[in-house]
Amino acid sequence: MDHLGFKPLSRVAVCGGTHGNEMSGVYLLKELQVSQPERVRSFSLSTLLVNPRAVDACRRYTEKDMNRCFTDALLSAPTTATTPYEVTRAQEVNGQLGPKGSEKAVDLICDLHNTTANMGLCIITHVSNWLGLHLFKYLQEKITSAPVRLILLKSPFSEVYSLESVSKHGIALEAGPQPHGVLRADIYNLMREGVNRALEWVESFNSGTVFEGGEVEAYFDVDKKDYPRDPKTQELTAAIHPQLQDNDFCLLKHGDPAFVSLSGETICYEGEALYPFFVNEGAYYEQNTAFKLAQRETLLLPAVSVQKPQ
Amino acid sequence: MDHLGFKPLSRVAVCGGTHGNEMSGVYLLKELQVSQPERVRSFSLSTLLVNPRAVDACRRYTEKDMNRCFTDALLSAPTTATTPYEVTRAQEVNGQLGPKGSEKAVDLICDLHNTTANMGLCIITHVSNWLGLHLFKYLQEKITSAPVRLILLKSPFSEVYSLESVSKHGIALEAGPQPHGVLRADIYNLMREGVNRALEWVESFNSGTVFEGGEVEAYFDVDKKDYPRDPKTQELTAAIHPQLQDNDFCLLKHGDPAFVSLSGETICYEGEALYPFFVNEGAYYEQNTAFKLAQRETLLLPAVSVQKPQ
Repeated sequence: MDHLGFKPLSRVAVCGGTHGNEMSGVYLLKELQVSQPERVRSFSLSTLLVNPRAVDACRRYTEKDMNRCFTDALLSAPTTATTPYEVTRAQEVNGQLGPKGSEKAVDLICDLHNTTANMGLCIITHVSNWLGLHLFKYLQEKITSAPVRLILLKSPFSEVYSLESVSKHGIALEAGPQPHGVLRADIYNLMREGVNRALEWVESFNSGTVFEGGEVEAYFDVDKKDYPRDPKTQELTAAIHPQLQDNDFCLLKHGDPAFVSLSGETICYEGEALYPFFVNEGAYYEQNTAFKLAQRETLLLPAVSVQKPQ
Repeated sequence: MDHLGFKPLSRVAVCGGTHGNEMSGVYLLKELQVSQPERVRSFSLSTLLVNPRAVDACRRYTEKDMNRCFTDALLSAPTTATTPYEVTRAQEVNGQLGPKGSEKAVDLICDLHNTTANMGLCIITHVSNWLGLHLFKYLQEKITSAPVRLILLKSPFSEVYSLESVSKHGIALEAGPQPHGVLRADIYNLMREGVNRALEWVESFNSGTVFEGGEVEAYFDVDKKDYPRDPKTQELTAAIHPQLQDNDFCLLKHGDPAFVSLSGETICYEGEALYPFFVNEGAYYEQNTAFKLAQRETLLLPAVSVQKPQ
């Protein structure tokens, strides 16, 4: 496993508006449509506004979270008049960019997301995606304006519910903090740099560059915590503690302040030492998630390059 | 005008959820309902969740911006089956806390708002509200955890469209930056300190304290700028420039960077030197407002105290 060869990445799709109020991706698509078409390169580049109805409404989704619709089960479910718009649209997108798990699928989806959490730039992908891991390594080396981190999913590929899983080597690119419904130049520029560097990496990969192996630090999504809530009404009784707010990826240990009640009492974290992320993400209130928790591991990557034609 | 006497402030209403996704006020109401009822004081305190439907939906409003519904014209308009919910609800609230402009109206509404802009704590009120100006002065002296500023409206009182105008001496209390739909402890705590200090001031005023006159700095809302937009689609072609973002209340001069286009070009401000505020407020995209502009003036306040019973 010290050197893996892959087919060239001949079809790349940059996707935005999977969540309709995450503005950096929505606007970066417009910019890519203007700036990229005339460029000659080794791959075809397409852009896709994934959930146009939600973008028009400036909401995360209209009936169902689109980025939970890309499991094998939902992509193959029969649709009826009562099927949520997002499920129907996910099947349509799967027809355009997939089908998921097939040879016909595009090589690389780069799906653009924003978070209200202070997460800098994150690559989220499946642990089995060696090319995605190398792409991350390249971005981390090249981008100095913000921290660049890697979040890995371990679930069986057929159960991965996010859009990038439709492609052979997909990644989600998450940038924050940015309020939903707001476009911040700093976060937009960070995402733009991420996408430009990613396209640069694909071009370099296709041209035959050998990307040497090496170590990368990865955060494995292993747990989550909900906000303290009133048992009857389910309303929040506490907010994220100021010592945890904006401190994504800083080790949270048993006894550290995690929440502060509405009247000012500190509530401490109880559990094993883990790395919090998506801390106080606005969209996760309804998912009963105050923050997610990760284990950090060092992974050893094999060298990769494009396969030589036989 | 060196000393003005006023009737005691016997009825105070703290209002939240006028915009349903501004979370600090929504949660501070819950906290006040628990912490305040048993206190003996010189005034009655009520709390009101102003737009419960919008709070349930975690949206600014359902059919019409509630905080634009408190003009004399809308409060007296006949309602029909097609009247927006917020107009009907505003009339209901006016019945409870008003009627606006009448002797029956409550003495002080303190209406709680959040902004995505970096505005610290702001008191927004009408220029004619001497008690509101003194309340601001007190808050500015007492609160050190964030800047406290005063934004003044000059329009005729009957045309003031915001909730606090229903009361005799109303103020809006604006705290930020906080993403809409998110509760941040730092901003919640700032708002909580603001409300507690405001109630403390009312108690002190009612008990006969003479508040000496003096100077206050006020920002008069005089203009606004929209984002650069595509003339055909009306979509944004630029974001707030990083040098302006988060720099509310810093003088913006002709030629200073104001926007940056999606492809990276700086667009400079053209106009007279003014103080920007509500910079990149999420709710104002649909109102074609990238930021508002203020003139700063120093006002001389008369001393005030409660009128001695005759």
